[in-house]
Amino acid sequence: MINVENKKKALVLFSGGLDSTTTLAIALSNGYEVHAITLDYNQRHQYEIQASKKLINEDYPEVKHFIFKIDLTKIGGSALTDKSIQVPKEHSDDIPVTYVPARNTIFLSLASSYAERHSITEIFIGVNAVDYSGYPDCRPEFIALFEKLINSGTKLGVEGTKITIHTPLIAMTKSEIIKQGRELNIDYSKTVSCYSLTSNGEACGLCDSCRFRMKGFADADMEDPTIYKRN
Amino acid sequence: MINVENKKKALVLFSGGLDSTTTLAIALSNGYEVHAITLDYNQRHQYEIQASKKLINEDYPEVKHFIFKIDLTKIGGSALTDKSIQVPKEHSDDIPVTYVPARNTIFLSLASSYAERHSITEIFIGVNAVDYSGYPDCRPEFIALFEKLINSGTKLGVEGTKITIHTPLIAMTKSEIIKQGRELNIDYSKTVSCYSLTSNGEACGLCDSCRFRMKGFADADMEDPTIYKRN
Repeated sequence: MINVENKKKALVLFSGGLDSTTTLAIALSNGYEVHAITLDYNQRHQYEIQASKKLINEDYPEVKHFIFKIDLTKIGGSALTDKSIQVPKEHSDDIPVTYVPARNTIFLSLASSYAERHSITEIFIGVNAVDYSGYPDCRPEFIALFEKLINSGTKLGVEGTKITIHTPLIAMTKSEIIKQGRELNIDYSKTVSCYSLTSNGEACGLCDSCRFRMKGFADADMEDPTIYKRN
Repeated sequence: MINVENKKKALVLFSGGLDSTTTLAIALSNGYEVHAITLDYNQRHQYEIQASKKLINEDYPEVKHFIFKIDLTKIGGSALTDKSIQVPKEHSDDIPVTYVPARNTIFLSLASSYAERHSITEIFIGVNAVDYSGYPDCRPEFIALFEKLINSGTKLGVEGTKITIHTPLIAMTKSEIIKQGRELNIDYSKTVSCYSLTSNGEACGLCDSCRFRMKGFADADMEDPTIYKRN
């Protein structure tokens, strides 16, 4: 479908986590020339940045990796951006305190800026609205609105070049995502999900992000390569 | 209308320019407790930041001023964020190279994050779609979409607290804006519009931003306190 000599470009929002790594692999498998943008927002789980670098360097060296620093601890308001707020150890049905105010709006706006700068019209984001923490900015209606917005608010968009936001994982369960990743040969030992990794690299096994990951591997009947702390 | 003992809060996007200073004064005149957010995006016209500080310190000390650093020169793609691109000295009917990719989407998303963090539901932005450079992210349709987006993509919004984006200047001419500012006793000598101020503080008088300002003062039959370079 895509001409190898003149590949179409795609930009992937890439945190180094399970979902965004699968999204990256999907974009690559679709034949795009892939750029990855990683937001170093001074998050509690800063080791995400290291994971993203290791994955690109070792497994996806053909990807152009752009790390952008934006210190959201200056705004705070989340357990991920304010160390005085604890990461919950139990699942809640409400929007949890790990919600970062307007995070995906900020991330997608920066991605759109980078994309426009490099004439990239295809943006991939690994949001998921099935096995997720109920963050409002992961839902299909939010993504559809953002796509409209960015086509209205950029030079590229108003001049008639359609920008598309791709969400290949949005309706998948975590186990479906993992199975898809296995087909794409992702080394999930390099992806990090936990919000509260210990200093020796063990995942807590209790935060929402660990829970969804563990259940996903169990449902997929696959071994999770993550090392979990004994609780 | 607003109870003085329990003032409603508003957040104003504040660059230190003519439009955003007028917007700030309007929000204050409406009785809000005003927070101002200034984006230090490492813009070419960095003196904007100094102007914003001076205005708040000297003329609006009741305003809570939050300066957020985000280095958009790392993305580039505009004469304002890439010094190798010249600021045009003539007006063009196309979207000019001073357009910063997705700037207002980025700014409004950061403003929304700060607003949510501080339970502020009223956001003011001094965009104008009359005497402006044709930037797509200054138009009413873009702002309306952003308001929808942020109500869909934040905890505050989905839990039923409406966030409103106010654009008091959007349909005004520059001279109407200046007249309104005069009524609100704005000291326009402290506001800076020029994209290419000289090292001794003279405005170029040639960039779009200077042109709109000069015409606005002339049409309002008021003296522009700006010192312009002799061209």
